[in-house]
Order: sequence, then C-alpha cells, then structure tokens
Amino acid sequence: MAKDKKLVEQITSMEEDFAQWYTDVVLKAELIDYTSVKGCMVLKPAGYAIWENIQRQLDDRFKETGVENVYLPMFIPESLLQKEKDHVEGFAPEVAWVTHGGLNPLQERICVRPTSETLFCDFYSKEVESYRDLPKVYNQWCSVVRWEKETRPFLRSREFLWQEGHTAHATAEEAEERTIQMLNVYADFCEQVLAMPVIKGRKTDKEKFAGAEATYTIEALMHDGKALQSGTSHNFGDGFARAFNIQYTDSDNKLQYVHQTSWGMSTRLIGGIIMVHGDDSGLVLPPRIAPVQVMIVPIMQKKEGVLEKADELMKTLSKSCRVKVDASDKNPGYKFAEQEMRGIPLRVEVGPKDIEAGQAVVVRRDTREKITVAFEELEAKIAELLETIQNDMLERARKHRNDNTHVAKDWNEFTDILEKKQGFIKAMWCGEESCEIAIKEETGATTRCMPFDQEEISNVCVHCGKPAKKMVYFGKAY
Amino acid sequence: MAKDKKLVEQITSMEEDFAQWYTDVVLKAELIDYTSVKGCMVLKPAGYAIWENIQRQLDDRFKETGVENVYLPMFIPESLLQKEKDHVEGFAPEVAWVTHGGLNPLQERICVRPTSETLFCDFYSKEVESYRDLPKVYNQWCSVVRWEKETRPFLRSREFLWQEGHTAHATAEEAEERTIQMLNVYADFCEQVLAMPVIKGRKTDKEKFAGAEATYTIEALMHDGKALQSGTSHNFGDGFARAFNIQYTDSDNKLQYVHQTSWGMSTRLIGGIIMVHGDDSGLVLPPRIAPVQVMIVPIMQKKEGVLEKADELMKTLSKSCRVKVDASDKNPGYKFAEQEMRGIPLRVEVGPKDIEAGQAVVVRRDTREKITVAFEELEAKIAELLETIQNDMLERARKHRNDNTHVAKDWNEFTDILEKKQGFIKAMWCGEESCEIAIKEETGATTRCMPFDQEEISNVCVHCGKPAKKMVYFGKAY
Repeated sequence: MAKDKKLVEQITSMEEDFAQWYTDVVLKAELIDYTSVKGCMVLKPAGYAIWENIQRQLDDRFKETGVENVYLPMFIPESLLQKEKDHVEGFAPEVAWVTHGGLNPLQERICVRPTSETLFCDFYSKEVESYRDLPKVYNQWCSVVRWEKETRPFLRSREFLWQEGHTAHATAEEAEERTIQMLNVYADFCEQVLAMPVIKGRKTDKEKFAGAEATYTIEALMHDGKALQSGTSHNFGDGFARAFNIQYTDSDNKLQYVHQTSWGMSTRLIGGIIMVHGDDSGLVLPPRIAPVQVMIVPIMQKKEGVLEKADELMKTLSKSCRVKVDASDKNPGYKFAEQEMRGIPLRVEVGPKDIEAGQAVVVRRDTREKITVAFEELEAKIAELLETIQNDMLERARKHRNDNTHVAKDWNEFTDILEKKQGFIKAMWCGEESCEIAIKEETGATTRCMPFDQEEISNVCVHCGKPAKKMVYFGKAY
Repeated sequence: MAKDKKLVEQITSMEEDFAQWYTDVVLKAELIDYTSVKGCMVLKPAGYAIWENIQRQLDDRFKETGVENVYLPMFIPESLLQKEKDHVEGFAPEVAWVTHGGLNPLQERICVRPTSETLFCDFYSKEVESYRDLPKVYNQWCSVVRWEKETRPFLRSREFLWQEGHTAHATAEEAEERTIQMLNVYADFCEQVLAMPVIKGRKTDKEKFAGAEATYTIEALMHDGKALQSGTSHNFGDGFARAFNIQYTDSDNKLQYVHQTSWGMSTRLIGGIIMVHGDDSGLVLPPRIAPVQVMIVPIMQKKEGVLEKADELMKTLSKSCRVKVDASDKNPGYKFAEQEMRGIPLRVEVGPKDIEAGQAVVVRRDTREKITVAFEELEAKIAELLETIQNDMLERARKHRNDNTHVAKDWNEFTDILEKKQGFIKAMWCGEESCEIAIKEETGATTRCMPFDQEEISNVCVHCGKPAKKMVYFGKAY
C-alpha cells in the first residue's frame, strides 16, 4: 500500500530493457497509476496535464479548419453496431457489453463505444436532408473502450481518451480532401508541437479500418526502432451512408448518398512522446507540450533573500512561459533528479552566490548544457532556449528516424536488417495480401504504410519477386 | 428522417405549457437531439459550445484554488462499489452493468461509474502514505451513467457530462473548509457567469448524498417556480477512509484516517440557464457563457459595400467579443428569429442606409431594446452593453426569485401557497424525517435546503407543530 517515493532512484536503462525502462518512466514521472480495474489506468496530474495541452492545441487547429465539437452517447445498441457488416466484424470481438440497467436485464444489449461511426451515422441520417446541410464537420473528445487482452500504459489500454472526428460531405472529392487535410493537421501537430517526425501514407487493405474505403496513417519511429501508429484518417466513401441510409437532396433535387470520413488521435501520443524523447534519467518533454516548462530550484534556500529572488524570477518569467519554483524541503540534488525525471525542459538554479553575481544557472534537460545568464537577460534567454530545445528535439528525432530507416532490395537484406538493426525498412511489395501475411509470419514485421513519397527501389516484390506495385514502410510496431 | 428547418415557427408559449416550451427550445435552438439510445442525447454544436464555456471558466476557478485534474477509469468492479454500505445502497439500483468483455463473460461484473468516490478511494489508498502527501485536491471532467426511468434533456438523462472533485485531507476541519470553499466557487460561478442566483444551504439527512456526513447544495429557482439543485458539495468525514483503509502517518508518526470531500456540477446547468432566462422567442444566454455574443445581420446584403462593412465590423468587434456575421441567403426576418431562438445576446443590423449615416442598429436579446450607435463608438458600446445585459439578467433573475419566495407560518399558509402560487416556501421544521416525508407525500414539495442564512419565522414546525429546529426552503423540484 505504501507508495514508492524514491523518484530519484535508478530506473532501468534503455539499453538493458527498453520495455522496463518505459514502465519505470511512466510510473516514476508520475504520469499514471495502475488500478483495480484490469487494463485501465489512472491518468495522474502530470500525465493528464500533458493530455490537456494536447487537447487544447489540437482543438485550436481543428477549429481553424471549421470543425465543431459535439458529444454523442457512450452506448451503442447491438442492432446499430451491426448495420455495417465490415465494421461490426472488426469491433464486435473487442467491445464491453452492458446487459443490465439497474436491477433489470435490458431488452437489447448495448456496448460501450469502441469508436462512434455508427452513432454519428444514425445522427446524420436524421440531421442531413438537403445539400444546404452539408458538410457536417463534427468532432468529439471522449473515452472509448476496447477489450484488449494485453495492455500497456498509454499504448494499449481497455479504456483510453481520444478525439474522433466524423464528417459528411456532398461529394467523394470533398471527403477525400478532408481525409487528407486532417492527416496533415495530425502530421503538423506531431512535428511542430510534439517534435515527433512522422511518415504519412496509406494503409494496405489488410491494415485499414473496419468499414473504410481507405485509411491514411502517420507512423513515428520510437527510440527502440519500433513503429508507433500515431493517428489515422479514414475515407468511408458512401459505404456507411448506404448502410445507414444517409441521403440528401442535391441542387437538382435528386437524392444522393453522402460521403464520410473519420479521424482520431489518442493518449497513445503520450507513449510516443516518452519513447521518442526519453532518456535514462526519465522523461524529456518538448517545451510546447510541457505542463511546466521551467523549474526554478533555489540553492541554500534558507539563506536570506534566496526564496524571494526565486519568487521574483518566477513572476518575471511567468509572463512568457509556464514556470514553477520548487521550494519544498528536499535537497537540491533530489530536486534536480525530480525535474529531470519529469522531463521539465529547463531548470534555473539560483543561490546566494548567483544573487551576488546577479545571475542564474540555466540547465537544459535535453542536452544537460549549463548556461550562466544575467538576471536582466533571463526572460529573453529562456524564451529563446525553449524555442531552441523544441527545434533541436525535432532535429534529433528526425536524425534518429533517418539513421534507422533502411532500404531492402531483396529478402536477404530484409531479414538481415531485422536481425541486426532496428527501424523502418523501405521495400517494394507486389500488392498481394498473401505476401503481406507471409512477411508478417516470417519476421513479425508489418506493413506500416504505403508512403505518399514513393521511391522505386526495385521493380520486384521484396518477398515473392513478382512485379512490384508499391514501395512500403515495414517495421515491427507497438 | 427529415429535419425540421423552420426555426422561426412558433414555439409553445411558457404560459401555455412550460414543459413543452422547454422541449421546443432545446430542440429548436439546436442544443440537443434525441438518439436511438433511450435516455441519452446528442449534444449538438450549439449545446456543446455552452458546455465548453462552462468547463473552461469553472476549470480556471478550480485551478485558482489548487485543484489538479486527473482521469480515472469509467468502470467500477462490483466488489469495489460495495465497500461503503450507504454508498452502494444509494447507487446500485441505478447503474449499468457490464457483464461481457468481447466474446467472454467477465469473472466479476463491473458497472459504468455513476460517480467515482469508490475509485478515488481505491486510488488514494495507494497514493497517500504520509501527511506530506496531503491534501490531495483532484478533479475529473467525464461522463457518468445513471439508469433513470424518466429522462429529460439536460435535467435527467442516463448519461451526462459533469466534473467531480474528490479531495483527501489530514483533518476534519480542512475537509469541511474545502467542502464550503467549493460550494462558494459554485455559487459565485452561477451568479457571476450564468446570472443565476442561488440559495446556499445544507441538505437534510434524508436528501444527502449516499455515504456523506453532510451534503451542501445550491438551489436555483426556475421561471415556472420549480427549484433546480444546481451543484452539491459533500463532506464524507472519515467514513470512506475507514471503509477503504486510507491512512497516513502524521508528524508524530501515528496512523490517522484521512477526511474526504467530493463536489460536482453537470450539464444540468444548461437546463438551468434555459429555464431561468428563456422567453417565448427561445433561449436567452448570459453574455459570459454565450458561444456567440454578437450576431451581425447585413440588411440588403447584395447591395454594394454591405457585406464588406459587416466583415469590417466583425473584425473590429472580434478583438473584444465573440462575434459572427450571418451572410447566409436567408432573409433578415428569418435571421433575426434565428438569432433570438439561439439566445445570442446582441444583434447588430447594418444596411445601406446605416452605412450612409455611419451607424448601426444594436438590438438587445433580453429586452428587445434598439440602440443606434455610430460605427466609431460600436466596439466600446458593445462591450458596455454585454456587461449591462449580464448584470440586468442577474438582477431580473434575483427579482423573480425573491418575488417567488414565500413565507409559510402554518400549514394552511403552506398548502395555500402551493395551490395558488409557485416558488420557494420558507418554513420552520422540527427536524424529523417522518415530518419531511409526510410533507412530500401530502404536497409534492421537498426540502431543498437548510439555508446558511437562517431566519426564525416561528418556533414551531410548519407541519406537526412540534418545536422547530431549522428554517428550511421547501419547493417542488426538477
């Protein structure tokens, strides 16, 4: 029952055991806690604050493209879930079923939403009547449930927080445009805010969303060389519209089916941030997403004037960044380790000698670099450093991704890379699902995406040698 | 399947049928829609945007008092729900039970949270070890489920959105202080932001929360004279701590139980806004909560320069308020009715003649007053009017509340008021639950609260004539 308070103690090193390192970091940086509900976690203040920042910044980007927020029920009646054949096949095996309301059995069982396509379709079938009602560009922030057997904090849990956008359009072109537009919003957000570079591309038919005509994805590379699917955007064509009878009268007074899309990102992104930027001292947060960007640590804080100076600096800095003072009675070394574990981008150390010299010591979390800065230049320097860290983190992640992206011209090269290296493998593919399945069974690597930026590495499939149709990113994935 | 687009058409008048008026308004102002999931609703963009504003402003007020946000699972295992006897008795009859995960029956059934005391207790029992870990002042924004038989949009639905704060403290005094502090945050928020005056007081034992030592409430009076419980704050003492074994070591190294509180407000507040401020033309939104505060309606918009002027005004006004232009091809009369139905606080009309005269016509939603304002004074005047409307709406609501609060010295007066008038009844009560139950059975009126501001109306109970203990607000309630 006792809580382990020794934040500073050694965590497992990444090299030794990456999975254990990950678990250590999520627990010791106090992002989550396990619960009595198997496969579900508590998002603690430090973890939830990251999600709040993701939400706010992503939501702003959505609204700039005309998205409106709504909220639909968390329950789906079984008959509604079954209306689209592929969709129900994909999701029914992993939903939680409610069978009783209060003391009485329900006439029809209902599931907790694993995703809300069917609810939005039901809603749009009542809302949409004329071409004047289109497009509908709605989004909701909510939690969803998928009854996974094996779970890991942020990466795969039975309940997780996400956003799901659902749109309806008059034409196929407009739906495709929105699908790609949102994929680009996701990719920009990951790169600009999370400092996490991504590969944009299309999923193969085998890997696409249940019920979609096309699924697009952004794929990021983690520190251990595994891929993380970080966001997806689906074009449904008029498949759901036909199943749910969502029709509108066009300007020629003819009945037409709408064309639909959906797109989602989740708390999984926090797992991505940890595994792209973290190091052996814990979390490293990109400044734009860090709940606290600067931690001021007073040195010899009982000496006259030290805490006052720390507070004064905080007041000045708080005009341009998110800053706190750690005035607890822990010793400075412990506070440093805590700030590092929590991934706070900058530490400002200020003690009696610094005050005498009219300066503070600023320490970067990402590089550990120490910089002495005069008090009067501190605000400007901190702002500049936060920008620099953000950019450097993106560049480092991009370099890591590039260094760990390999080209396989033939099957020997492919298996060789998987044995000796980690990362993405770019290779040609014949387009046959049987070949894709064989590759997965033989190596564990899956098709991550058919990137928008195609290259012609060779003209035959890396596995079967038949004529190649697409260049594909392969990789082992979370 | 066709959606009724005639926003402008007559809605039922409040006098004729208040319940129908309410339903008409929530549907025609496009706040909600019904769904295929019985008792659950869709919050449409206009409804959800009000909730977003409530969330943001309430969350800011929470954070000023040191609240941190977290997220706990939506599921509660049956064994966990049963740990506190009173609590499970209160909630078990109205929860939704999940019995299957995917294709398999669960070993233990789990319910969808109706409220999260038990989950927070389970969490705190692991988190809290020493007095240094206290207080814990956590809150979550989420949806909860209560399997109600009869439902009404916003007021009572099987799923609703809310926030629930849960705190743990070292002492009973600190817990009581936090309970009252949050009740005051709620009351201030309702008055200052929603322009909805409330009575603060304590619930009787019969009406208190399942498992609480004391429940405090804010009660508002609706236009039809019925009360709406708008927010509650509970002091649990150490009851839950004993049931869940949440103990800490104090500074003398002795084990102590924590003292806990919880407090919540929900989308029910939107029902309150509608029923306090609405009129026969629809919704009337207080400016501070209105998603759109000013709607600019161009008159004869096809004439040269009209739309340009409307856009120019929008750009100027958008610096200081939330403003939109309605440039759709509907006629101005329709646009006026729409703006009124949606409760947008101010309308700015601008046409060729106005442009020639260098002025616009501003119309208040609450009073219908028309004011001609020169373009160069528009920004300042709008800001001033929004403030005025906010204050006037609070004053009108306060007057309505006061005019409909009656004193009953004896049982004849009590029943007479209920027959001929509506509203709150202030009366003395003996403190016996049997008397409280008898009053409810005979009249339908319930104890709303024992107000903090006690008055001695007489010295005997209004119903039984025995010595009185408390002055109580009675009323019929939603």
